[in-house]
Amino acid sequence: MKGPATTLRFGVNYTPRRGWFHSWQDFDPAAAAEDLAQIAGLGLDHVRVFHLWPLLQPNRSLIRPRGVEQLVKLVDLAAEQGLDVLVDGVQGHLSSFDFYPEWTRAWHHRNIFTEPGAIAAQAELLRTLGQALAGRPNLIGLQLGNELNNLVRDNPATPQQIDSYLDTLLAATREGLAADPRGLLALHSAYDAAWYGDDHPFTPEASARKGDLTVVHPWVMSGNCATLYGPRSPQVLHLAEYGVELAKAYAEDADRLVWVQETGAPEPLIPAADAPNFARRTLRGAADCTGVWGVTWWCSHDVDRALADYPELEYSLGLFDSAGRPKPVAQALAETVSELRAAPDEPEDRGTALVLDCTPSTRSVCCPGGAYFDAWMRLRRDGVRPAVVLAERAEDDKHLATRGITHLLRS
Amino acid sequence: MKGPATTLRFGVNYTPRRGWFHSWQDFDPAAAAEDLAQIAGLGLDHVRVFHLWPLLQPNRSLIRPRGVEQLVKLVDLAAEQGLDVLVDGVQGHLSSFDFYPEWTRAWHHRNIFTEPGAIAAQAELLRTLGQALAGRPNLIGLQLGNELNNLVRDNPATPQQIDSYLDTLLAATREGLAADPRGLLALHSAYDAAWYGDDHPFTPEASARKGDLTVVHPWVMSGNCATLYGPRSPQVLHLAEYGVELAKAYAEDADRLVWVQETGAPEPLIPAADAPNFARRTLRGAADCTGVWGVTWWCSHDVDRALADYPELEYSLGLFDSAGRPKPVAQALAETVSELRAAPDEPEDRGTALVLDCTPSTRSVCCPGGAYFDAWMRLRRDGVRPAVVLAERAEDDKHLATRGITHLLRS
Repeated sequence: MKGPATTLRFGVNYTPRRGWFHSWQDFDPAAAAEDLAQIAGLGLDHVRVFHLWPLLQPNRSLIRPRGVEQLVKLVDLAAEQGLDVLVDGVQGHLSSFDFYPEWTRAWHHRNIFTEPGAIAAQAELLRTLGQALAGRPNLIGLQLGNELNNLVRDNPATPQQIDSYLDTLLAATREGLAADPRGLLALHSAYDAAWYGDDHPFTPEASARKGDLTVVHPWVMSGNCATLYGPRSPQVLHLAEYGVELAKAYAEDADRLVWVQETGAPEPLIPAADAPNFARRTLRGAADCTGVWGVTWWCSHDVDRALADYPELEYSLGLFDSAGRPKPVAQALAETVSELRAAPDEPEDRGTALVLDCTPSTRSVCCPGGAYFDAWMRLRRDGVRPAVVLAERAEDDKHLATRGITHLLRS
Repeated sequence: MKGPATTLRFGVNYTPRRGWFHSWQDFDPAAAAEDLAQIAGLGLDHVRVFHLWPLLQPNRSLIRPRGVEQLVKLVDLAAEQGLDVLVDGVQGHLSSFDFYPEWTRAWHHRNIFTEPGAIAAQAELLRTLGQALAGRPNLIGLQLGNELNNLVRDNPATPQQIDSYLDTLLAATREGLAADPRGLLALHSAYDAAWYGDDHPFTPEASARKGDLTVVHPWVMSGNCATLYGPRSPQVLHLAEYGVELAKAYAEDADRLVWVQETGAPEPLIPAADAPNFARRTLRGAADCTGVWGVTWWCSHDVDRALADYPELEYSLGLFDSAGRPKPVAQALAETVSELRAAPDEPEDRGTALVLDCTPSTRSVCCPGGAYFDAWMRLRRDGVRPAVVLAERAEDDKHLATRGITHLLRS
């Protein structure tokens, strides 16, 4: 599973149509199978799936066997539809809601990133999930959880503490998966603050160096990209590509893959009429990069408006509406996937790179509106396809040669 | 159901033996029936039952039908054992854990006592539960939730706001139960801060005047009673009785009943060897008061030590241990209930009352260690059985006559 991809993977983040993730409480295999069949019908090859932490581990020392069984059942239902699966373990954060077990909150508050008991419990959950999932033929791997860095707000930590947390949990994930000889992926993910946020404790280095590949979630709302530049702007249409190149700059292994694991077209930032083109351009842009594992759209099904309190944009992200009807964006995605599989884009030359000179405290230069972001996008608009090279490596001929970079620009 | 009790009711707060309240996620009617049969075997006549708020109402506009059905099923299972049931709606707080739905926390924080949307959602939950439960022949009533005042910590509110919250939710509860012609009880409960805590926004008046009777939870750990005076002290052995008399003082209706809804023998505050006697004395003390609805022991089954993070004392409160074996305190409780039913204590004369002069800001005089508490207990130790009269009513001859009070003492 590791190593350079021969074929790009295309998939979707699975959001159950009926009851969103609350449906775990009333898990209905038939309903899940129906959703998954719709997804497979688009020609996608994988889904990313999510359980809820408080339901899986309601007490620090209780991992619900039935919850784990149902998660495995969902993976098997996906297999029946020919879909591979990445499982996210600790949710954690989903669509603006923070799901914490009660043993981490209020009178029982434990910092989930720094308190040894809380870390050990998460490690145990990941080990248990890994053991239960190992051997499933359609399993891609196990990820610590969805954008755990959203939880920093209530669980402050230093970069060193986050590094240690990620190392501990990735080790537990690998232990859990160890019985499976295929080298399944052990991953972690972060929202864009890791790349854009000055002093944010989840660092670009942690994203680009820990776990078996680099996960990016280049969202058009991060740094107000779509608002600043408009939904049809080059900045929006090349955002996934930029995210990939930025991620590659921080890697230590030039062959390390990047997974565009979340991208989507939130209304009204991307008007519905623009969503199909945004999807096409985003997929083609990512496919045009070297070293991409795949692209996974967020998300499969709209949140039903009968459910309250989601940010407005969360209601419009599905390929299917909440009645199960495919939206135009679904068709555009399916067509683009089919085209790319038939005749993959020949990755363009990335011999030119734009040097990135920033520290953890000034990384917001990379954020939409930042100087580096704007310089990169100016080049892109002018027909250059710049890679990204860190300033500390600009004189490292071996690094440059390994990446095939022949020409450096400075902003 | 309303009006002076002819027979005292004796019951237990039901804590599922397997998986505690997390067992709702894997609701097993057979396991619940087994627990309830054990309870009925002690000769108790009722249970108080609890669901978990995040499981019942995971989204502000989603009340899980299956969760409600399972709660109704539990009530029916109790009926099969001859047990009546009080249902608590919004948990809320249980045994040190605060169960909040995610739509009230973190990015979505709403003050559950003051934010109109949060209040409306709780009202809807109570209305829905009332409608589902109305007509169940063994239903005692519906209570807003267990000791909601524990949630003040993260949801600050004024006494006026709490009064309004309680009024709104009690009205919704009554609406829900309206189809049932029996006059089921609509209640609320608070932990002892309502009676003992200076400036606490849940007031003694709210406890003693809102809802269909007054609920007290006179715990030996409140105000460190057991620690201050010792497990065999008169202060501990007369605590339930004191709680009843204090509650009666604040009532506007002299016939209003008081329910000793939680009392229990937490180790090590009450050593296991002392628990049987504590149970006997507590039941007899409450039975000796006039105007008591009943006594409900906390709790049916010990928390399994396989579950982590409960305060030490929470593991020892059951009548049955976590393997389902009855403890000596269960036998003591069963015998005392049997004796009291055969030959109810003749309530002693309460012609003497000790005048209580305090304000909401000085009510801690009533707390163990407080001047009023100590004065009342000194009288009790000397053989007097004092009622409590508020200073503002000490000259109100009608009030005193209605309550049969002929002699006032001042501390």
